[in-house]
Formats: sequence, structure tokens, C-alpha cells
Amino acid sequence: MTRNLKELIAQMTVEEKASLCSGLNMWQTKAVERVGIPSIVMTDGPHGLRKQERPGDMSSKTVPATCFPSGAGLASSWDRNLIREVGQALGEECLAEDVQIILGPAVNIKRSPLCGRNFEYFSEDPYLASEMGAQHVLGVQEKGVGTSVKHFAANNQETLRNSINTIVDERTLNEIYLRAFEGPITEGDAWTVMCAYNLVNGDFCSENEYLLTDVLKKRWGHGGFVMTDWGAINERVKGLKAGLELEMPYAGPERDRMIAEAVKSGELDEKVLDEAVERMLKVIFAAYDARQEGYRYDREAHHALARKAAAECMVLLKNEGGLLPLNPQQSVAVIGALADKPRYQGGGSSHISPYRLDEALAAVREAAEGEVGYAQGYSLTEDVMDDALMNEAVELAAAKDVAVIFAGLPDSFESEGFDRTHLDMPSSQCELIRRVAAVQPNTVVVLSNGAPIVMPWLDDAKAVLEGYLGGQATGSAAADVLFGKVNPSGKLAETFPVRLEQTPAYLNFPGGKNEVFYGEGLFVGYRYYEAKKEKPLFPFGYGLSYTTFAYEQIEIDKELIKDTESVNVTVTVRNTGSRAGKEIVQLYVKPVDSSVVRPVKELKGFEKVSLQPGEAKKITFTLDKRAFAYFNTEIHDWFAETGAYEIVAGPSSADTPLAAEVKVVSTGVPFRKVTRNTKFYELLAIPETAAFAEKAMNDSVEGLKQMGALFAESMGDGGLAQLFDAVVKWKKYDGLRSMAGLMGGNTSEADLEKIIRELNEKLGL
Amino acid sequence: MTRNLKELIAQMTVEEKASLCSGLNMWQTKAVERVGIPSIVMTDGPHGLRKQERPGDMSSKTVPATCFPSGAGLASSWDRNLIREVGQALGEECLAEDVQIILGPAVNIKRSPLCGRNFEYFSEDPYLASEMGAQHVLGVQEKGVGTSVKHFAANNQETLRNSINTIVDERTLNEIYLRAFEGPITEGDAWTVMCAYNLVNGDFCSENEYLLTDVLKKRWGHGGFVMTDWGAINERVKGLKAGLELEMPYAGPERDRMIAEAVKSGELDEKVLDEAVERMLKVIFAAYDARQEGYRYDREAHHALARKAAAECMVLLKNEGGLLPLNPQQSVAVIGALADKPRYQGGGSSHISPYRLDEALAAVREAAEGEVGYAQGYSLTEDVMDDALMNEAVELAAAKDVAVIFAGLPDSFESEGFDRTHLDMPSSQCELIRRVAAVQPNTVVVLSNGAPIVMPWLDDAKAVLEGYLGGQATGSAAADVLFGKVNPSGKLAETFPVRLEQTPAYLNFPGGKNEVFYGEGLFVGYRYYEAKKEKPLFPFGYGLSYTTFAYEQIEIDKELIKDTESVNVTVTVRNTGSRAGKEIVQLYVKPVDSSVVRPVKELKGFEKVSLQPGEAKKITFTLDKRAFAYFNTEIHDWFAETGAYEIVAGPSSADTPLAAEVKVVSTGVPFRKVTRNTKFYELLAIPETAAFAEKAMNDSVEGLKQMGALFAESMGDGGLAQLFDAVVKWKKYDGLRSMAGLMGGNTSEADLEKIIRELNEKLGL
Repeated sequence: MTRNLKELIAQMTVEEKASLCSGLNMWQTKAVERVGIPSIVMTDGPHGLRKQERPGDMSSKTVPATCFPSGAGLASSWDRNLIREVGQALGEECLAEDVQIILGPAVNIKRSPLCGRNFEYFSEDPYLASEMGAQHVLGVQEKGVGTSVKHFAANNQETLRNSINTIVDERTLNEIYLRAFEGPITEGDAWTVMCAYNLVNGDFCSENEYLLTDVLKKRWGHGGFVMTDWGAINERVKGLKAGLELEMPYAGPERDRMIAEAVKSGELDEKVLDEAVERMLKVIFAAYDARQEGYRYDREAHHALARKAAAECMVLLKNEGGLLPLNPQQSVAVIGALADKPRYQGGGSSHISPYRLDEALAAVREAAEGEVGYAQGYSLTEDVMDDALMNEAVELAAAKDVAVIFAGLPDSFESEGFDRTHLDMPSSQCELIRRVAAVQPNTVVVLSNGAPIVMPWLDDAKAVLEGYLGGQATGSAAADVLFGKVNPSGKLAETFPVRLEQTPAYLNFPGGKNEVFYGEGLFVGYRYYEAKKEKPLFPFGYGLSYTTFAYEQIEIDKELIKDTESVNVTVTVRNTGSRAGKEIVQLYVKPVDSSVVRPVKELKGFEKVSLQPGEAKKITFTLDKRAFAYFNTEIHDWFAETGAYEIVAGPSSADTPLAAEVKVVSTGVPFRKVTRNTKFYELLAIPETAAFAEKAMNDSVEGLKQMGALFAESMGDGGLAQLFDAVVKWKKYDGLRSMAGLMGGNTSEADLEKIIRELNEKLGL
Repeated sequence: MTRNLKELIAQMTVEEKASLCSGLNMWQTKAVERVGIPSIVMTDGPHGLRKQERPGDMSSKTVPATCFPSGAGLASSWDRNLIREVGQALGEECLAEDVQIILGPAVNIKRSPLCGRNFEYFSEDPYLASEMGAQHVLGVQEKGVGTSVKHFAANNQETLRNSINTIVDERTLNEIYLRAFEGPITEGDAWTVMCAYNLVNGDFCSENEYLLTDVLKKRWGHGGFVMTDWGAINERVKGLKAGLELEMPYAGPERDRMIAEAVKSGELDEKVLDEAVERMLKVIFAAYDARQEGYRYDREAHHALARKAAAECMVLLKNEGGLLPLNPQQSVAVIGALADKPRYQGGGSSHISPYRLDEALAAVREAAEGEVGYAQGYSLTEDVMDDALMNEAVELAAAKDVAVIFAGLPDSFESEGFDRTHLDMPSSQCELIRRVAAVQPNTVVVLSNGAPIVMPWLDDAKAVLEGYLGGQATGSAAADVLFGKVNPSGKLAETFPVRLEQTPAYLNFPGGKNEVFYGEGLFVGYRYYEAKKEKPLFPFGYGLSYTTFAYEQIEIDKELIKDTESVNVTVTVRNTGSRAGKEIVQLYVKPVDSSVVRPVKELKGFEKVSLQPGEAKKITFTLDKRAFAYFNTEIHDWFAETGAYEIVAGPSSADTPLAAEVKVVSTGVPFRKVTRNTKFYELLAIPETAAFAEKAMNDSVEGLKQMGALFAESMGDGGLAQLFDAVVKWKKYDGLRSMAGLMGGNTSEADLEKIIRELNEKLGL
């Protein structure tokens, strides 16, 4: 049904329009029945539906839903199709529960592994997070249900999230933190965006014009609306002006009234309110029209999808001597309370009530043909050294062919709302692993945790399987992988550090009580470890398989491109083992040289490919300007510098055996205007100004050399000789102003002004 | 002679006044004979005079002068009296050479050990640099000669120093980079300041109003004038407005003309020019009046001071088995070209022509009673593995009782004008040390270098003496220390890293081609190593002696002070060895808790004390507000938070055996106005608002708990319970705005506004 929204809005009173700018209650928007505007329902996500039975009743129960793996796990699949499929399933459950918008995906960057909400987030890499987020959005919205990409933006910790001011430089903000939101908005066309609680560079996200208007609405062309995270409002009218449409939840009549009064007093242009209402109505009607009464989804199918997803997400971190997959004939000691009582999701707003839950112990019993014993090993409620529990486990392990220990972080260790202060597992679990491994060489550790942990016991375990928080089917999925029904294919979407002090944000996490300074800048995740030459425990992109893959060839279709063109890169990868398997082929771009500080390399493409034993496939990636560009803070836009870029491919960030080089020629100008401080090197790179710059620079060097010679004469031992050499060597990075004055220039200030004017004319600036 | 400067200025034409704003030539200011204004001479420093015979003739020779140890060495003495004495000697040489201002001291912070000019700078610690700089200024100026504290500010690299834009946050700028200049300006009352070439946060230092006016003139009350580093001008009139008085050197008539025209066109208020001229005349006349015709200084005495200074600066880094001091009876193999051809100063503007130079080889021959042999060992001109030279050295070493290798960095490795790119010594020298030590267990390494090096051979050498660039008497001073005539007492004024990647600024040094981002923030030098738990090769403040010292007691005279009061801390230290010696007692302050991110501890006091064997002394330090304060960017001033502070004392930053605790009560307010985002914890710390804040916060928590209980009822498994716990726990860091709205507050927006108004009234804001 199409409606003329502008006409509709024209019929509304200021009070009616203002009323739409905050919720009806905890989960619904307000209706305006007089003009036929319906109320819609929103509920928590992102990896399952958390819907209260009665949206207006905060004490009503949560309805059962499918709990898929949380974001940290989903991203480890690196599988766009899988994420989309999960999104579709979420959309179906929304249709069935009469929910119009599901709040998610959550694409915030994992700045520190300590962030309590990392389990909901995808990655430390903005490209990977963006790709995953886009597919999530596409999947849900294909079903006629809206998403809300969150938490916009630079909300990377739970500590003081309501009040902390994130201080982050423009380049880092754009290249790392905002980049993750770009795919869900531009490719995914997310209906709504949820702003974060915190401030960014002095302004609350809920009234941050740079974020909500300049970037989201203008640069990315977002056509939907922005809502607050629950309670993330500061000054209502200021927020509306900055680009915030909807305040959630309802917080009394005062704020709507403030909006109406501001319009009446002339403080707020009514057009601002009209545009906000139009943005909201577009989404509200679309969602309302897509409702399907009596819709039912297939719980069996969704559970099967949850199981497939959980298995795809698991990352095999270690597999010494090919201990995994287990031989079904062997006898197995299943150890650890988590085998019986899985930790499959995190605490907070994403906490789902699943209608079914698979325990690993039961699943192992089903999969194994040999004898299976179980020992609890440790307590999940308190971290104490319980010798009785440990001895029981050790005895069991010694008596069996293999021990599988289910270990990880209890609920109390990580949750929305607070950050961890260390990376340790409960010490009783670490001790248990050591004791078991001491008697049983064939010890496997299966981990349940939402974010990296340190592994002081790593040398003791022969195999380690990272299961993240795998959702309601995590137990059966673990059995699928352990026994080889599924060949593991997940790879880490984040770096696992050796120790906390090694992590990029360590000096500034979680910051002070008023602000947090992102001093590490661009060097988040693997960008930091690589630049600092720090060896992590497990690098970004790492993960093993039961088969092996060879990277055979890399081909590029052009060796030189303009930044308006693209280059195709084809990578040949072969399954060289004896089992079918999937490989995540990763493509990174390394600037060979740059005028700005850049990470060693950055992920710019990936593809998950399924290969039969012996089979080879060619995967083609297309790289355009954005794959080579950095965010230039002079022009406030992406800029790809003229120069050589190495393109490398391989199985992980730390292993990129294939390399090719492409030369990119910029067609842009990295500044807004030529000024007296525009640098020779910048003009040298622009065809229209290169010849001028060459001559001016050489004249200036000539002047310098004459002066250097004069000095050299007076100073027998050459104290200034090296200094002059350096000044000459760096000349191309000097500004035009060095043409005037003593140090190498004889141009008058008046002539310099004229030269600058002419250069601007030549460049049309 | 007193003059009425205002009257004098009133008689001058605009052109005459403008003419004073740039130099006469390379080294002189302009005279205005018509009104009796003389020209004065300025020359390079800082650790010796670099005066050209004829100041107006760039090709004239440099006159001989005493070359003292450069700044890196001088600071290692931690000896205020010594620095002052050197300053006095510099002043005397200026008087003798008719120089009115000597350019220095150079107090820039050693942000990275790679900075090519570190040899001229004092320290990585701003307090130490400030103290050393103040004494240098006081010493010179006592003689009626001016100084120019340089390079103001945040000029911490040579790479692209002409054009690089230093991006540094306000707190770091003030706590680290500006702090080093404070002592020379406020305590030293330096007559002039030299601005740096680079930009700071977007403005050239030569036209940076924040630096030149807000901080230097207004906050610190500087009464002298600012000159540019040579050629560091950008826009002349803009510079004058921002607080730059003198452009150096003369660069043609155009810029003076621009000033005069700006006054005439009304673009520049003539009062600004008048004030600039008055500031310059004050210094020019003071310096001119203090001239002493026919002044002569005692070269023998200055050389003796240079020798004493060099010995005081040397840092004994290692002395296994008490190998040093050498027994004069032993036969000695002196090895290394640097023994015969010392590297005693750095390249660039500070390069001096000394009238005398002591070689270590000759000095060792003089001091030793046993046989002394010499082998060159390596080439100083190129880094090649010369087996013949090495074999000769190895044979010599094997034949003697002890080998002393003089090693270090050649001139080509470090200089003003460029930065190092690695921390290595020439590999031929490293190999030589290894080969000599393989045949001679008693191997000593004496180092000549301006900044830290890595020491892959450290395990091979039994003793290591860091000599820095020790000036013209470095050779004889080394012999004094080697043979025990002087008991070494220097300590490192900078951290020596294990490897380059470990250094604080590694990710952002030297930055891009346009800007450098000080992402490490406050974590410079030991502040970084301590916070990151990185073990350096040698920590800040470290140095050995031929005797031993015990830290026996720490006493404080008050356990609780207001920030308007001070506390006296008395440390008892005893010489527990059998030799007289000097100990540098170091005092650091550690905030126990803080609302801002702070370094683990910071140097706030030091004293060099001379002790006979068995003797103990009590050293008393007085700590006031500034010892506890951080730079608060809300009030743009220092602020000492209410709380506990540990005061620790010891022989180095890594060894502080004594500790006491003092509680400081703030009498200040850490914000300019109470706003809706002023935080409960801030108001709780202020007596006038504490009771209000307590009640408001508790009301808000109560509201939150009620809401939490409502949710908890609906969610059997407690997904939100931890989240609510955290929100309650962090409540005191929420802003007042949380009193309004849904999340724990029932105050109306109107009432909130009233409350804020009343709080401001109560605090007089």
C-alpha cells in the first residue's frame, strides 16, 4: 500500500508529530489513530528474539525463540550465506511473534578483548564486521522485518557506557569504528539505526550531528530513522536537530512536550520535525504492511540451522598429531560441568529463552560408539579447587582412550553491563586441565566463551576447539565437529593475545571516569600486533581444518589502475588432504609506501570455499579504490594515494603465502585548497601541477645548497653537513612557503600568493 | 642604567619598530641608532659557544670554546649545582666573546630514543628536564648573559621538523611536553624562548597563540621575548599577533614591511607591535648593559669543569664481580678507534670547536701503572668486518689482564637534522666486543653515544660504562672513572629499551609526511614501560656506584593535607660500602586511585647526596599540590584530586624500597560550571554539594532497582540481573541528567534545570 506521507504529515498537529518522537512504552512506538498511523513492536536481538509476552508490560514473560550463536561465533564462520540464512530465520520468528523490528545486528569493533559485550559483536576488523552485518540485515529485512544496526558509534566498552566520552581521531573513527556500520547501512539498507549511550568527541551519540547527519544521513544516504539505545537521550530537542528521530523507551510526557514547545517558540524548525516523522513513518508503514497474521515458522528447521551455524562457527585452534576427529570406537571421558550445562549465550539484553537446548554430553553419548564416562570436574557457581571433583575427573580420564574437557567462562565472567578486568578462565578449570592432561595425553579442550582468554594450559592440551557462545545447539554441534561429522572451518574474527598487557588498548581501557582516549588509533586488533611485531597466542583469521589446503597461485588482471578503476585478483586454492573441507581465503592489501601512517596490511576480501579432496578452485576478488584508500582528514573523504600496493592472500593474517603488486594512480586531490603550506610532494603527484612543483622544489634545493656550502666553508669538521643533507632530502615534504624567505627560496611573498592563486585555478579549487 | 621603554617606543616610527622584529643578519638583532637602540649578538649553544668570528659573515670561522658534555650527559648527573656551574662557565665565555644571548638550553622531551637530536636534550621525564633546564638558565643569566629555552614546543623529532604537524592532546601537551619548559621560564626567568619549527595541533609554533600567549605569557608570566628557530616563520603578522616577537635570521625587507603595512591598514593593532618591541628592548638593554669589555675566562678552569662534569655524567650500567675500578697495577688492552679519536659531541648547530681535546687512550696511559697496549679494533668511517683489525685487538686483549673497549655511535649515526631508524651500534663493533670477550673475561665497554642503543653483547661484557657525548674532556673523565679517581654517580635520565618495537612511540614515530600523532599520550619513557609491564634493558633513574647505599627510612610530617598545603617527606639513605660516593635519591608519587588515566608513578623530587662510608643523611623533599595534580582539561589547569597518594623513594624508577601514604583533600572544583552532565562523583567530592549528591544518587539508584526488580520477575534465568548490578555500581559516575527520565530518575526537566542553577550558585560558578 502506498501512502502520501507528506500529505499525511501535513494533516498532523505539532503535538501529534512530537508524540511520535518517543515510544509508547518499553517496546512499541506510538500510534496516531486519528490519521491512521499504527504502532509497531520492536524487541531485543540480535541472535534471537527476546520478546516479552505483552510489550507494554515489563513484567511479562519472554516468549520462547531460537537461540543462534552470538555475534562473536557467527563472525568466525566468515560465511556470508550462513549469516543471511540466520537473518532470514530471525525475520521469520519476528513475523510469527508480530514483531516489526528486531534490534540488531551489533557491529561494534572489539577494541579490547575485555569488553563485556564482545560476545555480541562480530570482529576487531571493520571490513569483516561490516560484511557480516550487511548479510544479517539483508536476511532479516528480506522477510519484511526491520533491523536496527547498533550501537552507533564508538561504543566499545561497557564500563561507564552511559556517560563516557570517547576521544577518537577522525581518521580512526572513520577507518575503524564507523567502517563497520557502512555495509549494514549502504548495502544492507537497514531500516533503523540505534545510537549508542556514550559521547563521541564531546557530543552524546544521541545528539551527535557528525555521526547522525553528516555521516549516516548525508554520506551514507540512510533513508530510515535513528532511535536511542534504551535511555540514551540527553537533550531531546538538540537530539532531534542532530538527526535523532525516536527516543526509546517512553519516559513520560515531558520530552514530547519540549519538542512541541520548541517548534512553537521557533527554536526548532518544524521542517526538522516533519522530516523526522516522515523517516519514521516510512519504516513504520513498511513494517506494518509486511505483517503476516498467523505466520508460523518451523522450529525443527530453525534448530537444525542453529546446529549447522554453531558447527560452522567453531574454530579448531590446535590439533596435535591429528587427535581430532575422534575415532568413534574409542572410549571417551567427557569432563566439565559445561558439558552438561552448556554456556551458550551471554547475559544482558540479548538473553533469549530457547525452546530447546542440546547438551554436549548427551550429544557425545549419541555420536560415540565406545564407552562414554562423565565427570563434572569443577563447579560453575564458584571458582574453588575442589579436589574431590578433580580426582574423579582425573581417574575417569586415565581410564579412557581420550579426554574431552568442556571448559570456558561462567556467566559471571562476562556480560553486557560490565567489562572483564582480566583474560583468565577460572583457575579451577585451568588446574583441572593440567591434572587431566598429566594422566591422559589425548586431552581435548572445548571452549565456551564470548571473547578471548589466555591459555596457560595450552601446551598440556593436544587439541583445542573454540566454540564461542554457540547458541541452543552448541552441544550437538560440538559433537558433530569432535567426531568429524562436520569438518571445522571457522577462523578467528579476532586476535587471541598471549597476555593482557599485550593488547592494543591496554593503556587506555576502560579509560578514566569521564573519558576514554583511543590512543592506539588505527592499531586495533591485528593491525596492532603486526605493527608492533608482537606475537599473539592465535592471530586474526587463524583456524585449522581436518584437511589441508595449498595456496597455489595469485593473478591480477591489471598491473596499473586509476583509482576510478578496479582490479581483479584471482587466487587458486586446493584441498591437498583426504577429506572434504571448507577454506576461508583471506585477501589483504599492504601499502608499499604512504605519506600517512598505515597498518601493515588490512583485510579487503574473503571468501569461504568448499573443496573436495584434491579439488582446486579459483576465487576472484574485485578491488576498487576503497581497498587502497585511507580516510583523508583534509578532504574528509577516502583517498587512494598514487603508489604501489601489495596484495597478499592466505589462510590467516599471519600466513599469506601469495603476493602480487598493483600500482594505483590517484585521480584525486588530497586537500581542499592549495595554500602556502601545501607540500611539494602533494603537487608532484597531481599531473596538472607536477611540472611546476618539480621546478619550484629544485630551485629551493639549489638555494639551500648554496647556503650549506657557505656554512661548510666556515666549519672545518662539518657539524652542519649532515643537517643540510637531511634538509635537502626532505625538501619535497616542505610547504610552498619555503619558496619565500631565506631558507632556500627567493620568491617574494606577493609572488607566492599569486602562484598559489594560479595553482588553485589550475585545479579548479 | 634604567630607561623609560614606553617613552622610547613612543618616539619610534612604525617602520623602526617593525624593523626590530627580524634580525640584522644571521646572528644579530637590528640597532635603531636614531633612538639609541643597540644591536646584540646571539649564538648557538647549548653546551658550548658556537660563535662565528664575524656575526654578519656566514663563512667566517667558529671561535674556539669549551665543549661541555651535551644535554643527555649533563642530565645524567642529576646534579643541579653542576648544571648551574656549567651555565656560569657558558656565561663567562659569552662575556669574553661579546655574545649577549646563548641559544639554549634545549629541554625537549625524548619521546623516542630515535630522535636525532636527543643528545642535546635532557630527559624523557619533564620534571627532570625542567629542573636541569632551570639551573642552566640561572647559571648563564647570573653572568648577565641571556638564554633562549628551546624548542618551544612538542618538537620531538628531526624528521620533517619544518613542516610536521604534531597532534597531541591537551593533557599530554601540558603534563609532558610543556612541563619541561616551565622551570626554565618560571624559576629560571629565561630572557628569551625559541619557538620550534613544527606545528602543534594545526598551528605553527611561530604563530601558535595557545603556546606563545596563553601558556607562555599568561600562565607562566614570561616577561622576555620569543624568537623563531632559524627560518621557522610562516605568516609574519599572524605570528606577531600570536605572541612571536623576533624572526631570525634576517630574510629580506619584505616581512618587516608586512608588519608596518598591517599596522597602517589597521589589520594589526599598533599596541601589539609596541608590546613586542618593549619585550625585546627589555632584554636587549639588559644584555647590552651587562657587557664587560676585555672579559677573559680561565681556560684551564673551564677544562677542569668539563672534566668534572663528564665524570659526573657517566653512568655505570654493569659491574660484574666489581671489575671496576681497575687495579692500576694490571696490564690493560685499550681497544677501539674511539679511544684515540673520541666522539664527544653531536652534529648540527651545537657543534663546537674546542680548544683542547682529551683522548681516553692517553688518559688511560697516564692513569695506569701497568702496561697499556692499544688496538684500533674497527673503522670509524665504515661499518665493515675487518678481520685484521679484530684479530689484532683479540690478540692484545688475550695478552693483558683486562680489556677496555671504547665503542659507540659514529657521527654518521646521529645528528641534528635526521632521526635514527634503528637502535643498533655498528655491527663491526658488536662483533669486536663478542670476540674480545671470548678471550678476555675481564672486558669493560665504555660507550660514546648520544642516545640509547641496544646491547646484544651485554652478557659478554663484565662492565659497561655509559659515557654519552662527554665533551672535550670525555677521554680523561673516562680514565678518572675507570681507575676509581671518581666514583661514578650518574643515573640514566632515559630508559634503555631491549628492542625498538618496545619503545612507547614506536607506532607513531616519526609519523606521516604531514602529521605525527602522539597516540601514546602521557605514556612516555618509564611511564610507558611501567604501565605496559614491559621490562626495559635499563630503567629510568638506574646507575651503579663503586659503593653501595641503603634506603633506611621514609617519614612524612602530615598524613592528610589540603591541596593548598604541602607535605615534607624525609628519606634516610646510608653509604653501606667502603668508599665515598654520591647517590641520587629519587622520589616518585603514585596515585592510589584516580578518575583519570594516570601513569603508575611520576618523578616529583630528587637530590644528589655525597656520603662517606658508613655515613647516613636525611634528605627532605617538600611536595605541594603540583606533585599530586594532573592537568584537568575542563578547567584548563592543574587539579589535585581528593584521595590517597603513595610516595615512594629509591635508587631508580624500578627500585623504590621506601613507601609512605598521604591523603590529599582537594579544595578545588574540577569543572567550570555544573551542567546536566556533571557527575555525582564530582559533586560528592566537594563539601558544598556532597549531601545533595548523596541523596540524588541514592534516589536514582532506588528507581533503578525498582525497574530491575520488574524485569527480573519476567526473566527467570536472570539475563539482566548482572547488567542492573553494574548500572547501580556505576551510578556515581552518571551525570545529573540521569535524575530525569525513565532510568532511575523521576525529576522533571524543569526541576533539574532549577537544581543545576542552585548548585552553581552554591559553588559561586
